[in-house]
Amino acid sequence: MADITRIIPRWIAPVIPRETVLENHALVIKGKKILDLLPAVEAEKRYPDSHPVRLENHLLIPGLVNSHGHAAMSLLRGYADDYDLMTWLTDHIWPAEAKLVEDAFVYSGARLSAAEMLSGGTTCAADSYFFPESTARAFLEVGLRSQITAPIIHFSNSWANNEQNHIDKTRAFINWSDQQELITAGFAPHAPYSVSNSGFAQILDYAADTNAPIHLHLHESAGEIQDHLSNHGCRPLARINELGLLSPRLQLVHMTQLTPEEVSLIAAEGVQIAHCPQSNMKLGSGICPITTLAAKGLNISVGTDGAASNNDLDMLQELRSAALLAKVSENNPCAVDAFTALEMGTINGARFLGLEQTIGSLEAGKSADLTAINFNDFSSQPVYHPISQLIYTATAQHVTHTWVNGKLLYDNQQFNYLDTKQVRADIQQWQRTIKALK
Amino acid sequence: MADITRIIPRWIAPVIPRETVLENHALVIKGKKILDLLPAVEAEKRYPDSHPVRLENHLLIPGLVNSHGHAAMSLLRGYADDYDLMTWLTDHIWPAEAKLVEDAFVYSGARLSAAEMLSGGTTCAADSYFFPESTARAFLEVGLRSQITAPIIHFSNSWANNEQNHIDKTRAFINWSDQQELITAGFAPHAPYSVSNSGFAQILDYAADTNAPIHLHLHESAGEIQDHLSNHGCRPLARINELGLLSPRLQLVHMTQLTPEEVSLIAAEGVQIAHCPQSNMKLGSGICPITTLAAKGLNISVGTDGAASNNDLDMLQELRSAALLAKVSENNPCAVDAFTALEMGTINGARFLGLEQTIGSLEAGKSADLTAINFNDFSSQPVYHPISQLIYTATAQHVTHTWVNGKLLYDNQQFNYLDTKQVRADIQQWQRTIKALK
Repeated sequence: MADITRIIPRWIAPVIPRETVLENHALVIKGKKILDLLPAVEAEKRYPDSHPVRLENHLLIPGLVNSHGHAAMSLLRGYADDYDLMTWLTDHIWPAEAKLVEDAFVYSGARLSAAEMLSGGTTCAADSYFFPESTARAFLEVGLRSQITAPIIHFSNSWANNEQNHIDKTRAFINWSDQQELITAGFAPHAPYSVSNSGFAQILDYAADTNAPIHLHLHESAGEIQDHLSNHGCRPLARINELGLLSPRLQLVHMTQLTPEEVSLIAAEGVQIAHCPQSNMKLGSGICPITTLAAKGLNISVGTDGAASNNDLDMLQELRSAALLAKVSENNPCAVDAFTALEMGTINGARFLGLEQTIGSLEAGKSADLTAINFNDFSSQPVYHPISQLIYTATAQHVTHTWVNGKLLYDNQQFNYLDTKQVRADIQQWQRTIKALK
Repeated sequence: MADITRIIPRWIAPVIPRETVLENHALVIKGKKILDLLPAVEAEKRYPDSHPVRLENHLLIPGLVNSHGHAAMSLLRGYADDYDLMTWLTDHIWPAEAKLVEDAFVYSGARLSAAEMLSGGTTCAADSYFFPESTARAFLEVGLRSQITAPIIHFSNSWANNEQNHIDKTRAFINWSDQQELITAGFAPHAPYSVSNSGFAQILDYAADTNAPIHLHLHESAGEIQDHLSNHGCRPLARINELGLLSPRLQLVHMTQLTPEEVSLIAAEGVQIAHCPQSNMKLGSGICPITTLAAKGLNISVGTDGAASNNDLDMLQELRSAALLAKVSENNPCAVDAFTALEMGTINGARFLGLEQTIGSLEAGKSADLTAINFNDFSSQPVYHPISQLIYTATAQHVTHTWVNGKLLYDNQQFNYLDTKQVRADIQQWQRTIKALK
C-alpha cells in the first residue's frame, strides 16, 4: 500500500454532502483517485502502510474550479487600469496584443497564470485565448487540469486569418486534445458581435459532432446590448436563441444584462453560467443576478476573467466577491451564504465544464484534485466555522497544498516540479519587452 | 548618524505629491520622524553612516489608516455569518457579548486585531468598543497608532450602567489619553437610535471643551431610517443636524442612505466620512455614494468595521472593494481609480482623524509610519504600475514591513517585539471558551 496516501487535516469540507465539515477524518488517495474518506483512526487501521500527510491547522476542500479566464493575459496584469472598456481595449490592450501575441507570449503568460492559480488553490481552469496549444503546453507543464478554447472571431490576427480559419484551427486543437487526460477542449465563439451567423451555425454542428462545449461571452455590458440592437435589430440572446445554441452544453459568461423573459428562456434551456463578479465590477459592466438564476435551477460557477482586467486569479477572493455582491445588490445578507459560494467554486464549476463525475467534491472514485488552506495566521484566528473562514477571510496566500489527479504539485507553499526561478526570469524578460512598447 | 535609517525600496509612493511613484529613491528616517526623501545615490552621500534597509521588490507607502473598527470583536470572527442584521445581533452577537465582554476579552481581542492590522500594513486604526483602556493597553503593546473611543449607549452593560455613566467613563478615558503619544480619544455616541437628545447635547459640549472628535454610526441601513422615522418623526441625519452636531470634527460611519438634500447638507458642513464597503456589502446595508460625496469636497476614508461582521481587517482588500463597488454601482470603470483608493487608505484616513499634519504621506517632518509590500510572488508579477498592483492585486499577506513612529515593528513578516506564541495561545483559550457558550 505504498502508493496510498492518507491526508489528515484539521477539517475536511467534502462539498457533497452539502454543508458538511468533518473533523478527525482522513482522505485516502490511491494513484490518481480518492479511495476513501473516513475517521482518521479507522483510516490508520484500514490503510496501515499508507503515507500520512498531517495538516494540523488546515481545511481540505476539493480543488477550486475557475470557470473563465484568459491565462496568457497575465503578462499584461495592471498594464492599463481604470479606463472605460473601449479605451482600455482600443488604446491599450489591442495595440499591445497586436505586437505581442505569438506562441512564446501565450506560453509564458499561461505558465505564469497556471502557477498563480495552482498556488492559490485552483486545480482546474477554463481558458480562452489564441494559440491554445501554447496554453495547453504551459498548463501541462504546471500540472493544471483545464478546459481550453480559442476565441473565434471574424477578424484576422496573428493566430488565424478569418473566421473560417479560427474554426478550422479550433477543430484541429480539439482533435489533438482527445489524447490529453487533463485537457478538454471546446469552441469559444468570442461574442455575438464578433462572430457571424454562419460561423455560429458551423460551430453548433461541429460541437454536436464532437460533443464539445461552447464557451461564449454574452450580455457583458449595456453597451453590447445597444450595439447589437443597432446592428442586428435584436438583443444578443435573442439571436443566440434563434441560431439554436441554447443547451446545457452552452457556457455563458458574464450575463449582467437580463430581462425577466430572458431569465425564463435560459432557465428553460438549462445553460451553464460563469459569473465573473470582480471583472464585472472593475469594468463597471453590471451585476449577474445569480440568486434569481440559481432559484430557477441554473448552475452558477465563478471565474476570475483575465488578469489584464481583474487583476489576479485568486478564486477565494472571487468567491468572497460573489457572496458580498449578491448580498448588497439584493439587500439581503442571507443571499449566497458561505457554503453556496464554496459550491460555486467547486462542484458548480465542475458541472459547468461537464466534469462533475470527475471532480468538484471529495468522494471516493473521483479524481484527487485537492486544496489545503492554513488557518494559522492571525487574520484566520479564531475558527468557529471553517467554511465561513474560507469564504470570508482566506486568500490565495493562505493556500499551502494542491494536488491534481493525485499528484502533490504545491507542497507547503513550494512547487514540487516547477522551475520557479526560470518562470520568474522569463516574466522579467517579458516585463522589459512590454514596458518598451509604450 | 547611527540613529538614522535609510530605506531603499524598489518603488516609493509618497501619496503627496499625488500619483507619484519614485524609483531609485531612499526614504530617510531619524528617530520617530521622516527626515528626507531623495535619490538613493544622494542619500548615501548625505547620510553616509545611516543604516540601510534594502527592499528589492517592494513598494513603500505611508502606513494604512483604518478609519472604523471594533478590535475586540475579532474574537468573534466568523462566529455567526449570513444572517440578517437583527438575527445576527439579537440571536448571536449580543448574547455572546453579554457573557463575554470584560477587560480580558477586550484586551485579547484588541491585541489579536492590532497584530492582524500591523501585519497587514495598517499603522493607525480608529476603534470603538467598551473597556477602551483595555483596547489602549493592547494597541500600545503591539505598537499601533490609534484613535480610541467607546460606544455611548443608553443601555446598561458590563462596562457602564446608563448613558450618563458611559459619557462619564468616556471623559475619564479622554483625560487619561492626553498623556499618550500614540492615542487620540474621542466620543462615540453609538447611533441615533441608541443615544438620547440630552446625551448628544452633553457630548457636543464636552467635545467642544476638549477638542475631541465625535465618531458616529449613521444611516447604515434602510431599516435604521424607517425606525427613526417611526420613533422620532424624522430621518436620523435631520435630528443630528438639529442637535448641532454637524462639523468637520464629526466622523460619520457608513452613510449608505442619502437623499440629494442630505448630500448637500453634509457637504456644506464638511463632515468626515468613513466608508466600510465590505461590511455594507456583507450585511446587505447599501452603498455609500463616495464619488458623489467626494465631488462635493467631502473627505472619504475607508474602514474595515469589526471582524465579527466583515470578517478580516485587511485594508488592501477593503480599498480594492471600495474601488470595485464604486465602479459597478456607478457603471463607470473610471470611478475611484487606484491612486484615489490609496489616498482614501492613507492621507484621507489621517484627515478623518485630524492627524493629517502627522501621518498619511511620506513627507519630511511627518512621523515615520510606513508600510512595505513585496511584489515578488507570481500573483504580483509582472509590475507596470505599482499603485495599480497595490490596489488591485495585493492583500495583507503581501505586506512584509511596518514601522510606526520610526520603530520597525513588523520586519520581513516577523514581529520584532510581540510574543506571538503567547498571543496565539491566548486566542486558542478564548476560542474554547466561546465555543462552549453555544
